Amino acid sequence: VTRSGASALIIGNEVLSAKVKDSNGPLLIERLRARGIALELMLMVPDEVDAIVEALVMARAKSRWVVTSGGIGPTHDDVTVRAVALALNRRVVQHPQMLELLREAFGSTSIPASALRIAEAPEGSRLIGSPNLKYPVLAVDDIFLLPGVPELFALQLQAVLETLPGEPVVSRAVFLDAFEHEIAPALDAAALSEPDVEIGSYPTFDPKAGYRVKVTVEHLSKERVNATMNRLVKSLPESKVVRLEDER
Amino acid sequence: VTRSGASALIIGNEVLSAKVKDSNGPLLIERLRARGIALELMLMVPDEVDAIVEALVMARAKSRWVVTSGGIGPTHDDVTVRAVALALNRRVVQHPQMLELLREAFGSTSIPASALRIAEAPEGSRLIGSPNLKYPVLAVDDIFLLPGVPELFALQLQAVLETLPGEPVVSRAVFLDAFEHEIAPALDAAALSEPDVEIGSYPTFDPKAGYRVKVTVEHLSKERVNATMNRLVKSLPESKVVRLEDER
Repeated sequence: VTRSGASALIIGNEVLSAKVKDSNGPLLIERLRARGIALELMLMVPDEVDAIVEALVMARAKSRWVVTSGGIGPTHDDVTVRAVALALNRRVVQHPQMLELLREAFGSTSIPASALRIAEAPEGSRLIGSPNLKYPVLAVDDIFLLPGVPELFALQLQAVLETLPGEPVVSRAVFLDAFEHEIAPALDAAALSEPDVEIGSYPTFDPKAGYRVKVTVEHLSKERVNATMNRLVKSLPESKVVRLEDER
Repeated sequence: VTRSGASALIIGNEVLSAKVKDSNGPLLIERLRARGIALELMLMVPDEVDAIVEALVMARAKSRWVVTSGGIGPTHDDVTVRAVALALNRRVVQHPQMLELLREAFGSTSIPASALRIAEAPEGSRLIGSPNLKYPVLAVDDIFLLPGVPELFALQLQAVLETLPGEPVVSRAVFLDAFEHEIAPALDAAALSEPDVEIGSYPTFDPKAGYRVKVTVEHLSKERVNATMNRLVKSLPESKVVRLEDER
């Protein structure tokens, strides 16, 4: 395990029950990809402390970084801070810097108890600020606790990704007029001879697509991608190749 | 744990790496909801036996039914059958009925080895047929192994859901012109007095939305939904209520 990738936790009864269509998961997938960070696991769990703790344990065992979406806020179903604290065996404390931000927001009036909950954080948390953010991102160890509201999630995710190292993956695709089982031996041979190059095979049943299978080759090295793709294409009958894309 | 709900496993490097945008997860969420079956957990994992086995163990501990998407087919990255067999401690065998279907499809020509892989199944699997399906759904215990290709996934999911019992949930929403922290005490009180009624709170930061928070109340019983919603609305200042929806 390289432990250089990320896992994602999408938290919320509303997404599991189809009341709200989750857009944070798809956004995270796109943004991690663009940043060159592998997404290794994504979990969608309800607003329940036990479920979140279990998912966190699994995600942390798998990935260097964990991004959570949702369950941050002042209402009864906002339990992410408590769950992260439990998973890390930390206490929940009031974060002094968040308290300060709330004091500024509420001015001379006293902060309502329910708003105070926004200042709660697992002990040892740090804040990641950015000029675009009214409220900074709460982070503890390598877990980033993002709100579920899509507008806020997007802004905070950007601030988080700017702090992470990344190396973009090179990808190349070939479109084939063949059934998947016809090309399976060639793919197996390529996968076996280049075990660290990722080879994917995606059939379509859309008659308008103009091809039957899309095959992708991926690696950090452009040279390895091109060498593998060229060898793979040569091992297939020329008449089956509809279109070979350049690497990107 | 009632163990009457479902978990979902979306399997595939292509969705985690943003090469393919997953549409099976969102479809499953909608269809389970319409059928009245709670989705308790969703996991997105790569095409790796270990990751799939681990996810299956977690899903089976949580839910009565498990639906998997992807990793079914003749190529090297199709490892779902093997992973399910491992998770259940079963052997992988050739399913006689699937073999028969392949023999029909290939007619007098012999079945290629790569196509034969489609007939592999965990020992003790059953097939769920339907007039709409060319190939039946592979099921073992309460795990349904669906292909990742969206067109096939949708058809097979329909066949699966027809075999499951379901009871639709009643839902009702109120839209409020209030900040979440202002209504948090009222929501807490309602959640505390009606612990089995699900109350959700969803702020928006879209100035064109015409409200600040949407609050939903859900239960199997229409009467319980309406009683809880009426009590909740009465506990809030009338001026904060933008719009109260009928139950549905």
